[in-house]
Amino acid sequence: MAVVGAGLIGTSVALAARRGGVAVHLLDADEANAATAVALGAGVLGPPREPVDLAVLAVPPSAVVTVLAEQRARQLAEVYTDVASVKGAVTRAGEGPGDFIGGHPLAGRERSGPLASRADLFEGRPWVLAPSPETPTPVLNRVLELVSMCGAIPVLMGSQEHDAAVALTSHVPHLVASLTAARLQGGSHDALRLAGQGLRDVTRVAAGDPRLWADILRANALGVAAVLRELTGDLTRVLAALDELAAVGPTDAEESAKTLVGVLEQGVAGLDRIGTRTTRPGPHVQLRVSVGRRPGELARLLAALAESGITADDLTPVHSLRQGTLAVLFAVPLAPARRVIAGLSEEGWQAEIWDPQTAPRTPTGGGS
Amino acid sequence: MAVVGAGLIGTSVALAARRGGVAVHLLDADEANAATAVALGAGVLGPPREPVDLAVLAVPPSAVVTVLAEQRARQLAEVYTDVASVKGAVTRAGEGPGDFIGGHPLAGRERSGPLASRADLFEGRPWVLAPSPETPTPVLNRVLELVSMCGAIPVLMGSQEHDAAVALTSHVPHLVASLTAARLQGGSHDALRLAGQGLRDVTRVAAGDPRLWADILRANALGVAAVLRELTGDLTRVLAALDELAAVGPTDAEESAKTLVGVLEQGVAGLDRIGTRTTRPGPHVQLRVSVGRRPGELARLLAALAESGITADDLTPVHSLRQGTLAVLFAVPLAPARRVIAGLSEEGWQAEIWDPQTAPRTPTGGGS
Repeated sequence: MAVVGAGLIGTSVALAARRGGVAVHLLDADEANAATAVALGAGVLGPPREPVDLAVLAVPPSAVVTVLAEQRARQLAEVYTDVASVKGAVTRAGEGPGDFIGGHPLAGRERSGPLASRADLFEGRPWVLAPSPETPTPVLNRVLELVSMCGAIPVLMGSQEHDAAVALTSHVPHLVASLTAARLQGGSHDALRLAGQGLRDVTRVAAGDPRLWADILRANALGVAAVLRELTGDLTRVLAALDELAAVGPTDAEESAKTLVGVLEQGVAGLDRIGTRTTRPGPHVQLRVSVGRRPGELARLLAALAESGITADDLTPVHSLRQGTLAVLFAVPLAPARRVIAGLSEEGWQAEIWDPQTAPRTPTGGGS
Repeated sequence: MAVVGAGLIGTSVALAARRGGVAVHLLDADEANAATAVALGAGVLGPPREPVDLAVLAVPPSAVVTVLAEQRARQLAEVYTDVASVKGAVTRAGEGPGDFIGGHPLAGRERSGPLASRADLFEGRPWVLAPSPETPTPVLNRVLELVSMCGAIPVLMGSQEHDAAVALTSHVPHLVASLTAARLQGGSHDALRLAGQGLRDVTRVAAGDPRLWADILRANALGVAAVLRELTGDLTRVLAALDELAAVGPTDAEESAKTLVGVLEQGVAGLDRIGTRTTRPGPHVQLRVSVGRRPGELARLLAALAESGITADDLTPVHSLRQGTLAVLFAVPLAPARRVIAGLSEEGWQAEIWDPQTAPRTPTGGGS
């Protein structure tokens, strides 16, 4: 195969292909990049004598159309794919000979260039392919083979649908991170001492190469603007609410306060869509363990649960006001549930399977 | 001491104090919270008979003023401090008897409640104290003792200055994360399959409790609105630029493209202010190692450097177009530099200290 563009993505693809035993030809207009990729063992320098099976065009979005035309003219390969994060224009330009499928591996790092590359960069990551209805199946299969070799999960998707999706999940979040980070320029030294992990997380992706990202944003201007316009609508309402709260004092302006709660609740609802709240796979049962009244009993229970990999984050406390008792609920996988109950019972805890649908309690473990 | 409010922060303070051997009285209107904190070993339930040395009011920002008045009336403690993330109104309300210092530990988790607490939550984190000019030194010292016991770094700051700082470093980033996460509600299942670590990082903090955060935002409405207004200005310019790029096509509209690059570059500049780009402390020298022409030589060098903890991310490639040679530059601490050079030389690498100011090269190591 051939890789045109020995940056982060191109060199990583080449390293993954080399790991899979494939011969790779590396081409890059930047000789330092090409030399570095070769020195990393990503392949040999320069074009092949005969057309190769597959060429990966790992160049910036704005260059894909030109580079595809050039390489088709020199007959570099039988099949072409690219890795640009915007697919609309690229896919239209690739139509015709049926030898091109737009692609986009959803992987990256803040660092760019071949030295940042990794053979395992794509492991377990989605890799979008946007074939047209006319794409021959053998052509699709050849690109799917590359995706598999890189350890990625192929996701077939229309190019319009792809561009709307990455506007939402990648391009707008990047812009928002940059806008937030840009504000830090005005902060005093003391103010910035208060920066914590939250701020670092929100702004981390803003470290990406500004020229590459401007290139991405302009290629997906329509999709990004659509999402950003909705976000600006929310932002304007938040700003108006804050202005009112600042003017009348924090104890009035209930409507404005509700606006703030509403926006924050929508954020939580949005997060639920990407499963940031982890749910364990497979069948589970709820266990209920009574906590004694002695101070520190719960700390002792947590120490016992740690052996089963259960932490405080997994627990829901249940407090009975009437009886003044405390218990905790938590989910364990069905298979080891009996073992967990037996282990807790041995140490003197009253543990039981908790089924809120039938009986309130089904005692199964011994008690202390 | 006493802790009023056994949520995440209050229970964590209490656990840290217990770890330091201090007797802690826990008070919370929510009996389940109080019972859980006691069960975690954070202290004993209920108020002390005599006033304690120090009371920490770990209640939401909007409740601090009322709770301070209540506890002063019952003479809970000699000295009071709070942990609310907005200090303006609290500090004004605390003035008078000279027994109150507003405080704000810069620590937290997305989870709330006593079960999320940790004795080491504040280790190495800044803890702002906002004393007034009239605050007696013994009062300040008593609160400083608590901060030290929690392993936090005290930062003295005016309450106005504090509120502007957290608007910039915490409150606006939180809002921006929520606004971005809120957009995900409109995404299709397939679109959200493309969600990656970047999106998760940008939106992570949006999982925080909406009611608590609305409370924080309304208490700091003026400070948050000021930063958000600047951000909205940038956002409006970005949206106009994207609209123009979408209308005329990505190959025209150079001014709009420059606007995008400009905003992204300001984001990078802002990130530099919080030192996201790690720089190693202490005196360093630059080493230069020549990489042979054989494919894979750089991969072999990286394996050799791994023993000294140097990774590809630390390397800068230097390519000589004229001579067609590749070398890499990287920084190592002064002390082990000779050892690193000797080790590389033994393995056949040509390594030398690189001083761009005097001679272009000062060979110090043997060659292969």
